[in-house]
Amino acid sequence: MITSAKGFLAAGVSCGLKKSGRLDLALLVCPSGANAAAMFTTNKIISAAVQVSKNHIKSKKIFAVVANSGGANACTGEQGLQNAIKMCRQTAKLLKAEPNEVLVASTGIIGEQLPMKKVTAGISKAAEGLSASASAGLDFAKAIMTTDTKVKKAVRRFRISGKNVTIAGTAKGAGMIGPDMATTLCFITTDAAISKAMLVRSLKEAIGNSLNRLTVDGWQSTNDTVIILASGAAGNRPIVKQGPAYKKFSRELMLLCQDLARQMALDAEGATKSFKVVVKSAASKADAARAAKAVADYNLVKCAVHGSDANWGRIICAVGSCGVELNERKLTCKIGNVTVFKNGRPSKFDHKKVKKIILQKEHTITIELGAGKASDFYYGCDLSKEYVTINADYHT
Amino acid sequence: MITSAKGFLAAGVSCGLKKSGRLDLALLVCPSGANAAAMFTTNKIISAAVQVSKNHIKSKKIFAVVANSGGANACTGEQGLQNAIKMCRQTAKLLKAEPNEVLVASTGIIGEQLPMKKVTAGISKAAEGLSASASAGLDFAKAIMTTDTKVKKAVRRFRISGKNVTIAGTAKGAGMIGPDMATTLCFITTDAAISKAMLVRSLKEAIGNSLNRLTVDGWQSTNDTVIILASGAAGNRPIVKQGPAYKKFSRELMLLCQDLARQMALDAEGATKSFKVVVKSAASKADAARAAKAVADYNLVKCAVHGSDANWGRIICAVGSCGVELNERKLTCKIGNVTVFKNGRPSKFDHKKVKKIILQKEHTITIELGAGKASDFYYGCDLSKEYVTINADYHT
Repeated sequence: MITSAKGFLAAGVSCGLKKSGRLDLALLVCPSGANAAAMFTTNKIISAAVQVSKNHIKSKKIFAVVANSGGANACTGEQGLQNAIKMCRQTAKLLKAEPNEVLVASTGIIGEQLPMKKVTAGISKAAEGLSASASAGLDFAKAIMTTDTKVKKAVRRFRISGKNVTIAGTAKGAGMIGPDMATTLCFITTDAAISKAMLVRSLKEAIGNSLNRLTVDGWQSTNDTVIILASGAAGNRPIVKQGPAYKKFSRELMLLCQDLARQMALDAEGATKSFKVVVKSAASKADAARAAKAVADYNLVKCAVHGSDANWGRIICAVGSCGVELNERKLTCKIGNVTVFKNGRPSKFDHKKVKKIILQKEHTITIELGAGKASDFYYGCDLSKEYVTINADYHT
Repeated sequence: MITSAKGFLAAGVSCGLKKSGRLDLALLVCPSGANAAAMFTTNKIISAAVQVSKNHIKSKKIFAVVANSGGANACTGEQGLQNAIKMCRQTAKLLKAEPNEVLVASTGIIGEQLPMKKVTAGISKAAEGLSASASAGLDFAKAIMTTDTKVKKAVRRFRISGKNVTIAGTAKGAGMIGPDMATTLCFITTDAAISKAMLVRSLKEAIGNSLNRLTVDGWQSTNDTVIILASGAAGNRPIVKQGPAYKKFSRELMLLCQDLARQMALDAEGATKSFKVVVKSAASKADAARAAKAVADYNLVKCAVHGSDANWGRIICAVGSCGVELNERKLTCKIGNVTVFKNGRPSKFDHKKVKKIILQKEHTITIELGAGKASDFYYGCDLSKEYVTINADYHT
């Protein structure tokens, strides 16, 4: 839970943004002020919240993050921008911080103004209910959900310079997920003492190998945001340069983010399972990523995974089509540990065995391009009838 | 029908490649020898048939095209190549032509060798049944179908230098359709007298504005082939250079190909309707095409079209995400003739009216990027539960 790291308080309340009456306003507070880093959508159309947070993240310390579901506050013009600033201002006032020491995030339908009376009441209510308890962390996690069916959370505990350190994260996923910034919203807390510069670097590395390697439907939303706050409450010797402590912290942060990415893939809209596409022996890392994404995004592969069918033809089709360098005579494909295509030719394999592999909640497709030494990967999920139901029946 | 142009014979027979017993071997013959042009998949993994036809298309005259469904003859190595050559050789022998004067095309499952006994018997049977009748043309069209539910055919009749000229075409579509070469298989006949050089040029232009602007699931297959044969039987003054006759011919060919592309979109796997995405005021033609494809390929847009929902947020999301230059303050989107988003802000519009537009079999989404003067378009189709059913239950 996001409150597992020392030095943080959280709350999640309902303020009427979701018609269902579910939790829709989340508040995360670091009373001592946190070093913070953030990454945002690279979509050219960005929400008001992203515009404001991109500016506020420059502050030396961040005291709070206020987030809402039930409204993306994107394509809402000047009024939307004012509303996002207002959310920061009110939160700052309640916490006796400065507005630019508060970050803001929104998710939901694009193009509608937030009902600010409700939001304002929600922020006050959340501020009153702040707590370091696990249930407060859970409420926070629930309050950022949209079509997610499950709370996404992960915790890593480890030691740095003799002190117990915790990193905790929560995220919302579901749909409109495509790199770069395959999240929608992700919030991470740590009690590690770590400088802002190192935190920025570490977050970039971790996201590059996790959330930015997740694709559900190819394009990123207008609101994607990931924020990490470091309270320093663990009391470790501050991490201020690259070295063993930084490495350890970064590795743990990456594992946490990969954990969250997999949870998002598994709970993507309509998804029943997820898969990882690993591309090896590519001419460049960019080629490897491109081929992996091509396979992970390909509806015919997603359907084959849904039907637990070892349809390597569709995998080869995507790889051959996506424009990467490859050596046809070396092109090889494995599903799980079974080679289904080797050196440009189909292999004889046990279809029942491969079906069992694909029937699992998660499996890995490995492709060798035979064109170089680079590798990369992507997480994807299957395509089900439920995805169509959710997205054809979801009306604006 | 493909036999509508003078100077062609066709046949379609069943030789047991399809388990269903449906027609699966098609033969098209131009007894006088035709000037020919062809375009093939740019997938790096190409079928044996494509390899052979790429070579044979260099011949001065083409006398026949032999095509089969029920087997792609792709990823089949040296034996597959020999089988494709064998198909040409047998066809040539029956017609007293040279093997390199015969083109070959295959479609179906990737990775299996063709059962050549059946294919050989099928070619003999087809050669015996050759006819210029409409029903022979229909049999040809049926014999190239895979998961298509409808025969795709188009005919254009016009006059050149005082003579009646016909262009006729048939195609198979369904799935694994993505540019460039969004077809799988497409065969066109014309009785126009036109030089090979002019035919090549005209086909390239026509496909660039039709089949190469169609996307069902983003990636092209290993087998995509479009072939045009010109018998010269119309007796018009031969078209040997660019000029009014060439222009007229090319325009008609493009209209025919666009007609076939729309038929393919409408009969794509599980599709219930198609839509055209037009992108205007782009910084470059490449940007316009990229944005149009991003929208046409985006599962969330395809689902919104399926549900007849005016979900412009998803359109904007894809446009903003796909990396093209845009001016947010000028970004505008129309569904049919209704503006739903103008100068970067949502417009008030009549949702019922837009729903009616999207409920049609075909509609147009128009996007203005406000970044330049270029424009381009793509055809797409909706995403239905049936697409998932077809592709999750279709087992290798």
